Order: sequence, then structure tokens, then C-alpha cells
Amino acid sequence: MGESNGVNKPLVAFLGPKASYTHQATLDVFDEAKYILAPQIGIEDVFSAVQSGHAHRGVVPFENSSNGSVVFTLDLFADLYQKYPDILVCGEAYISVQHCLLGRDPGHHPHSLNQHVRPGLGLTNVKERESPLSSGAVTPTTKEPVPSKPRAAPLADLSKVKKIYSHPQAWGQCKSFLNTYLKSIERQDVSSTSKAAQLVADDESGTSAAISSIVAAKVCGLDILAKGIEDRSDNTTRFFVLQNRSPLSPSPSTSVSAGTHIPATEPPPQPCDPSPETENYKTLISFTVDHANPGALAHSLSVFEQFGLNLTSINTRPSGVENWNYIFFVEIKGRKLDGSAEGAVNKALLDLGKVCRGWRWLGSWENRLTAAGSR
Amino acid sequence: MGESNGVNKPLVAFLGPKASYTHQATLDVFDEAKYILAPQIGIEDVFSAVQSGHAHRGVVPFENSSNGSVVFTLDLFADLYQKYPDILVCGEAYISVQHCLLGRDPGHHPHSLNQHVRPGLGLTNVKERESPLSSGAVTPTTKEPVPSKPRAAPLADLSKVKKIYSHPQAWGQCKSFLNTYLKSIERQDVSSTSKAAQLVADDESGTSAAISSIVAAKVCGLDILAKGIEDRSDNTTRFFVLQNRSPLSPSPSTSVSAGTHIPATEPPPQPCDPSPETENYKTLISFTVDHANPGALAHSLSVFEQFGLNLTSINTRPSGVENWNYIFFVEIKGRKLDGSAEGAVNKALLDLGKVCRGWRWLGSWENRLTAAGSR
Repeated sequence: MGESNGVNKPLVAFLGPKASYTHQATLDVFDEAKYILAPQIGIEDVFSAVQSGHAHRGVVPFENSSNGSVVFTLDLFADLYQKYPDILVCGEAYISVQHCLLGRDPGHHPHSLNQHVRPGLGLTNVKERESPLSSGAVTPTTKEPVPSKPRAAPLADLSKVKKIYSHPQAWGQCKSFLNTYLKSIERQDVSSTSKAAQLVADDESGTSAAISSIVAAKVCGLDILAKGIEDRSDNTTRFFVLQNRSPLSPSPSTSVSAGTHIPATEPPPQPCDPSPETENYKTLISFTVDHANPGALAHSLSVFEQFGLNLTSINTRPSGVENWNYIFFVEIKGRKLDGSAEGAVNKALLDLGKVCRGWRWLGSWENRLTAAGSR
Repeated sequence: MGESNGVNKPLVAFLGPKASYTHQATLDVFDEAKYILAPQIGIEDVFSAVQSGHAHRGVVPFENSSNGSVVFTLDLFADLYQKYPDILVCGEAYISVQHCLLGRDPGHHPHSLNQHVRPGLGLTNVKERESPLSSGAVTPTTKEPVPSKPRAAPLADLSKVKKIYSHPQAWGQCKSFLNTYLKSIERQDVSSTSKAAQLVADDESGTSAAISSIVAAKVCGLDILAKGIEDRSDNTTRFFVLQNRSPLSPSPSTSVSAGTHIPATEPPPQPCDPSPETENYKTLISFTVDHANPGALAHSLSVFEQFGLNLTSINTRPSGVENWNYIFFVEIKGRKLDGSAEGAVNKALLDLGKVCRGWRWLGSWENRLTAAGSR
């Protein structure tokens, strides 16, 4: 049920470990005083915890502005083995990603760890060091960095770094820095950027480094060897908040509200909210089409246009049923009204059913991306 | 120019090293007696070699039937930094992927390497060993393999394996086997499956293993610890053959045919082929849309339907210009006629230009995917 435990706080499962970017997103949405935040090893563990009812909510990464979709998350939404039939997206969060290169700088002692500013992360204001190497003092290993000049120069000598750990998505976000300063260095994928920092902290040889967050530097007591090494300064990752649609798991969409906790920091309960549909909501839908039918995809997409529903993203993944057939994911502006055939989204889904092979509503939630910025 | 070198054979650049799946695809299209096949370290090196004219053709992986698109290749086609303006797809190849776990079996000596069956790969018929462990003798580390039961059981004791090397795409194709038999084992990404085999061959400790091909086992003298470990028996990877559209690089589409070599194994020259457009061709197009315009994507896609052009795939990648804006890649049945405004593809592109922000033709080629099978 997820609602009751030793301290009577609902559980929120997130892709861990502590200090991961997903942890930051989770703290952005859920107040630690009112929830137990439970780090999970993999994205699938978050889906499982929400599907089983063990967790009240889940938080998973969905998309990065530079590197594209998180295919692991898409494949879990595709749900080829029907293990997660009750998973719905009920919220989103955008987190600015500033990657750092973390490791051991022999000429420097790690920061003190006994300061706290932000609850949950043990984060203090990070004491930045002046670069001992002015820009240009480090000879790039390539004449022409790809795709362009790196935004940051190392703050320490990187010549001792023989191995770099990070999450697979991070390599693609830091191409210029890596190609310029660490081109031929061995890279090892690990399950998260914070796990990468932990591994480097455990490595006493001092020859490994991690692409991770400034928060992880504090948590793991590592030095910041370079800061802001991502290719783009507006590098942002989008996270989804998951809930279970089943009444077994008390959720805002059920009338069984006893025992549920919906603190102010959680996204407002959309499905039973009587306010009109607006640009303020987004909806995720998956569907498959008859690949032998020319125009099946265009027909499916035009359904949304007919009801004035703007597409904000489209993704495809292999269908898992037949080679070179795909499952499509579309995100539209608007929301599905609960228990009603009214509303543009409900009407569009009705029409979609006539032109596609099958579809699934994967949730409606409040749009957190405003014109003003990343929130 | 790529056409002339010491032995007067045109050069074909492919994602190496030798014995990679891309090498197999290259041999499938190009006769080694008539071309010099040149392995490259990365996919971008293949694009560079074709763009510069150093190579006559290039071969790169594009898509796997289980694991989806190769985003590195898509991003090079997106060409955000306008480094590859002249790259066109001129052919495709489908290669069945059978992954093996390769390593050192202490109770077994590697195969003799002095036999040859297939030119170019040093491949003999692979001497398969009977499994010393009947299925079930190895205790899976998870009760319920994900996503389903593995198709293969180990042929040797895997307890000494402490580290696995492979290409990032391979992990997603062998989930069941890895989750069942090698769940907590460290994984390291390398640039290709054949590179993985080389690293294992170089590791004298005998505690590492590679997910690679049966061909790589022969080339590197490794034992096959498990065979056919991919989740799906129809696991297939699709490759693109690249050419340079510029007349500087002699190609089938130019009238300057002196000195060009178009052996029978190469895809037939499409752009100047006078035969009518048919289902026998495919075309790749990239485009961007005005994201503020509802229905812009549906409008763009319906253009193809209006001319009876079936969409065979669609992909998206971040536009690189603005966050949460995308570049779209569509593949359609049909071909663009050279130097003409006639034909459905040319007409559709004309109309596409009216509804999208910008588009680029990325090539037309003969469809090698037939109803009969993977070719």
C-alpha cells in the first residue's frame, strides 16, 4: 500500500544513490519531512516499487536536453512483458545539470563534510578553487575539439587520471571536454553519476575520476578537478513522477482519500481536478500502428491536431513484437479528464483507437516548463 | 579522391576493428578483391573519411532490431556543426547478430587459427563444444530473469569472470543472459564488440569476458563460453553505406565515370537509374519544425502520405539549437530522382518545405529488406 510504515510517511522511490540528479529532482517535488525518500538501484526498481504499491510515488529520469531520451525509461513504459500496467506519470521536474570531473587532487585536501545547507543532500556552498592552470596551459589532445571548444578548463593536473566512471548518458553530454582533455582515457559505465563518485572515493590509487555532480563531490569528499564540463550551459534533465493508477494504491484520482498525504510540494492532483483543460497540462500516450498501412503514423498524429492538441515530443522504440516495427510515444499539451468521455484528449484517444493498432494512456500532469526558463 | 591509391582500388571505410559486425556488413556489400576495406576507430571517422573524399564509401551501423537506433549515427546525420554536408546514404545491409560470451575456459585450448572459409575474416566453421553444464546446472542469480528466460546456457563455468567488455548496444540485447548468469559482474563499455574480444585476449588473468561475435572468437583465439546469448533469435542490425554527393568524389550519380569501379556486389547506382520509383527503394530525410505551431509535425508527415510514400521509420534527436526542440528523421519507401522535380519524393519534399522549418535529403537506396527474410 505504501501509505503506512513505521513512521506513517509515504514512500517515494527514486533512482539512487543519494546525491544523484534524480535525488535532486525528488527533493524538488517531495518534502523530506513528509515522505521517506528511498533510493533504488535501477530505473526498473522504481517502476516495480510503484507497480507493487510498495512506493506511493516514483521518480525517474526521462529526457536530457542535449542527449535525448532515456531509452531504459521508454522501454519500461513500452512494457512489452506487461509487468507495469498500472504505472502513470503524474508530475515532472526539470533539473539543471552541471557536470563536474571529480577525483583526487594530490595538492589539495577534501572539503570538510560537516556543513549543511540543503536538507537531504548534506550540501554546503561548494568551495571553489582557482584553477592552477590558466586556460590553454593544458595541451588538448586533439587540435580541433569535437563538437566545439570545451566550456571549462581543468582546475587540476589530469595527467594521473587513467580511468573515468560515469553514467552512460554523461559521456554524450561532455563530448568536448572529454575529447580535448581526456581523449584516450578508459571510460567505464556505472549505474549513476553518484555511484561513479562513490567508486572514485573508494579508489585509493587516486588514478580514477568521475563525471558527477557538485553535490556528489561533497557527499563523497572528492576534489573538483573541473567544473561545468557539459557541452551546453543549458543542459537540463527532465524527470517524471510516477504513481499507480490502481485504487489499491491510494492516489489523488481515487475517492478513498483516507490516509493519503498530498503535501504542498507534490504536484497537484490532476485527474480529479475540476479545472478546465489548458496549456498547463501534458499527457503521455503510447501507440502502435499497422506498418503495412501507408500513412498510418500520419493519420494517428493528425488526430491530435484535429483537437488542437500540440505535440511536444515524439519517440519511437522497437515494438518487441516484430523486427522493424515500432511503438510510438507522443506527448501532447492537454489532459485526460478522469471518468469522462469529454475533453479534447478523451475525444482524440477515441479517434486514435480507430486509426492505430492499439494505444495506452500513460498519464496527465501539470506542465512545469514555462517560457521563463527551465521551470 | 579515394579512387586511386597504390593498388588502384577504391577505399571503403568501416567501423572497425576487423571482425566487427560492421566488417561483416562491409564484406556483404563490397568484394575484397576490388576494394580496400579500411577499419576506422569511430563512426565519426567513417563520416570524415567519406566527407573528405579519402574514402569512396563508408559503412556504419544505423539500427538494431531489439535495441533501436544508433544515436551516434543519427547525431552525425543531424550534423549540427555542418561538418558532413555531402554525406548521402546509398545502400543498406542487414546482418544477423548472434552474440557470444568469449573468454578463457581453463579446461580448453583455443581453436586452431590456420583454417579459412570466408575471405577477409579468417573464419572457419566454428568448432562448437558440448556444454559441460546442462541447462539448469548453473544457478541463476535471479529467480525471475528479466525480461524472460535466457535463450542460452553457459558452455563453461563462469565463476571466474569478474569483468565483461562489450559495445554499449550489446548490453541491451543480452539482458536475460546477463541478468541470469552474470548479474553483479562489472561491465565496461568499449568502442566495438571486436575490440572487447581483443581486450579479453590481451588479459592474461583469464578473469574477463567479452560479448562479441563467433568470428571474433576465431580471430582472437578465445573460447566460446556461451553462444546465442541475445534475447531474441531474430536480432538483426542494419547498416548504411555512405557516399559523398560531391562530384569531386567519383560516384554513380556523376557522369564522370572514368576511373570509377562499381563491382557487382556494390548496391546498384540508384540516382541515375532510369527505372521507375517503386517499393524497392528507401529514402532518408531529416527536418525540423516550428515547435510553437500545433500540428506542425503531423502536417509534415502527412505530406508523405499525400504522395503515397509509406513511412518505414521515424526518429528524433535533440535539435542542438534550443532545449526540447527536436530534429526528425523519417525514412520512406521511394526514391528521389536525380536532377528532376518529378517523382513523388521530389514533390513531397517541395511540399515539406512549405510546412516544416527546414529539411535535408540524406539519400535514396535500394531496399534490401524483403518479405522473405532479413535480406
